[in-house]
Amino acid sequence: MAQQHLEPTEPVSGHLGPSPTGDALAGYLRSQATEFLRALRQHRESGGTAAGAEDPVDAVRALRRSVRRVSASLHTFRPLLDPDWSESLRPELAWLSGTLGMEHAYESRLERLLLALHRLSGAAFPTQPATVGGGSAAATASSSPDRGNLTVGAAKAGALLDRQLTLARTRAHSTALQALGSSRFHAVADSIAVLASEVPLTRTAVTTDIRPLAGAAQERLEDAVSALPLVTAGSPYNAEALIHGLSPDPSPHPQDAPWHQVRLLLRLHRYAREVLTSSVDVRLLTAGQCLDRHRDASEAASAAAAAARTPRIAPATAYALGVLHADQRHEVEAARFAFQQCWQKQAVST
Amino acid sequence: MAQQHLEPTEPVSGHLGPSPTGDALAGYLRSQATEFLRALRQHRESGGTAAGAEDPVDAVRALRRSVRRVSASLHTFRPLLDPDWSESLRPELAWLSGTLGMEHAYESRLERLLLALHRLSGAAFPTQPATVGGGSAAATASSSPDRGNLTVGAAKAGALLDRQLTLARTRAHSTALQALGSSRFHAVADSIAVLASEVPLTRTAVTTDIRPLAGAAQERLEDAVSALPLVTAGSPYNAEALIHGLSPDPSPHPQDAPWHQVRLLLRLHRYAREVLTSSVDVRLLTAGQCLDRHRDASEAASAAAAAARTPRIAPATAYALGVLHADQRHEVEAARFAFQQCWQKQAVST
Repeated sequence: MAQQHLEPTEPVSGHLGPSPTGDALAGYLRSQATEFLRALRQHRESGGTAAGAEDPVDAVRALRRSVRRVSASLHTFRPLLDPDWSESLRPELAWLSGTLGMEHAYESRLERLLLALHRLSGAAFPTQPATVGGGSAAATASSSPDRGNLTVGAAKAGALLDRQLTLARTRAHSTALQALGSSRFHAVADSIAVLASEVPLTRTAVTTDIRPLAGAAQERLEDAVSALPLVTAGSPYNAEALIHGLSPDPSPHPQDAPWHQVRLLLRLHRYAREVLTSSVDVRLLTAGQCLDRHRDASEAASAAAAAARTPRIAPATAYALGVLHADQRHEVEAARFAFQQCWQKQAVST
Repeated sequence: MAQQHLEPTEPVSGHLGPSPTGDALAGYLRSQATEFLRALRQHRESGGTAAGAEDPVDAVRALRRSVRRVSASLHTFRPLLDPDWSESLRPELAWLSGTLGMEHAYESRLERLLLALHRLSGAAFPTQPATVGGGSAAATASSSPDRGNLTVGAAKAGALLDRQLTLARTRAHSTALQALGSSRFHAVADSIAVLASEVPLTRTAVTTDIRPLAGAAQERLEDAVSALPLVTAGSPYNAEALIHGLSPDPSPHPQDAPWHQVRLLLRLHRYAREVLTSSVDVRLLTAGQCLDRHRDASEAASAAAAAARTPRIAPATAYALGVLHADQRHEVEAARFAFQQCWQKQAVST
């Protein structure tokens, strides 16, 4: 089996001379907490709208970025941290990260689906435009209603997705704004403000080598990767991802779950590595991007299938959504292939 | 460019000692004509129905097989044959081959689409069953109407395709039977009967080396292959085949045409090779099978798109047909990849 020989990355030890201890962890947490406070200040100064000097979208992204890292460190280095404190903070960070991420998720899902519709319509657009505004792509497509049934279908499918996902995004935006004004959020922000100056380490943490804990995160990743169907994924056009494409179960594909899990474990490993070294492992980033693409395509495919269950849509709309769903499921398959290739390359080069 | 180094097969010369001349061609044409007459007798004895001892489907297949070879030889070795005779016979052979092939084409197209629908429905069927009877697969799917909207869609799509393609197949069957009873066919059969005993070679043919003509057929193939987008095809998940998947043009994908052309040229080369040697080039067969798969998937995708334009179908049916169309277009892409791999292998091993 190919997987058994895979070594995803250099071990996270080495490079550092004396063993890194809880001090390194405390430094990392302090700097992430400082990032959080800076992003929060930025967000408040912009008033949560685009009127400010700084883009509030960037501020929210920076908030999520530091929240993810603090949360991951609490998980990976749990034995070194005051258990009461970390166990009470972790679910709050998960709530915050989830709530703040939804708006961006709906926005990029819509963008992905509209770009795919344009590609599939053979429209005279660049194949890989950098960005597409919310509803502009669908509007452009529907401005040519004389192009035949299926292109009307693509335009209508685009308009339907635009309507549904823009509504979801708007709701997510309100929810995020409410969350940022809630007392629950203020409690989290207070905890992180304390963290910026004083990290609640256990008494023995400053003399404890933290590399074994980081190594355990890496092992959890490697175990999960070795359980993936990488041999299948590495065989192009294996047609796995679209199996059950018409199955009656509207829930997300169960075959995607292990890949989503590896995506999370890879992120935990990457953040644990950040605690130990400032050098960036480009291959880890690339592998993570493959899994991001996998997740995005998987969710876009589900959104297309869900839109097709809207009552009273035209057959041409439903047809376009079917093509779109299958297209995104093939993106899922392509992302698995890309991950397998990337992981294989890591194994060869180390 | 990778293509420039490709050598698809061993040159068709060599192996034979003295140069093969028009005599070899005459022998080949006589034996193909004999095969034709045997298949025709078989077909008549079976009465055109399954009641006979021999399967009439096999007889028709054998007829087509010999007609294709005679036709190809008339094309490739044209300068060695009486021009009036060959120029008058060739269009008749093309008509016969086309007419006799339609029934089988519709039958296998339906089978391919129903198998794909089952695969996509996650139905408890083997993924690669050997054969599926005409309407049985759709009937099985529609027997579980309580499996949710999209599975009803798959069942309805299957029933619709079954209806449309079975009708087309039935018409093709009648047309083929009419053709086999027509005076036009009897004239072709008479010409081939003459060919079985006497091949109308030109005066110089028996002393002419026929290898240059066979070599020219090989060159035409290689030129056409080198014009294919093989670099793209060899890059998995290039997403080329589904571009224009929702385009307004209902005609076959223009991007498929060069591949269909290579398929025909490969067959001409293979038959020309048969005139010179009895050894079978397995790699040529494999490459040809990839292109057959390409053609079949391309036509199946068109049939799914055409079915989706049926008036008054349910949205769930249209959705299933959209997924099916995209699935078959990915089969097109997979077949191109397989051809590229096969051709590349030939280049390396020669």
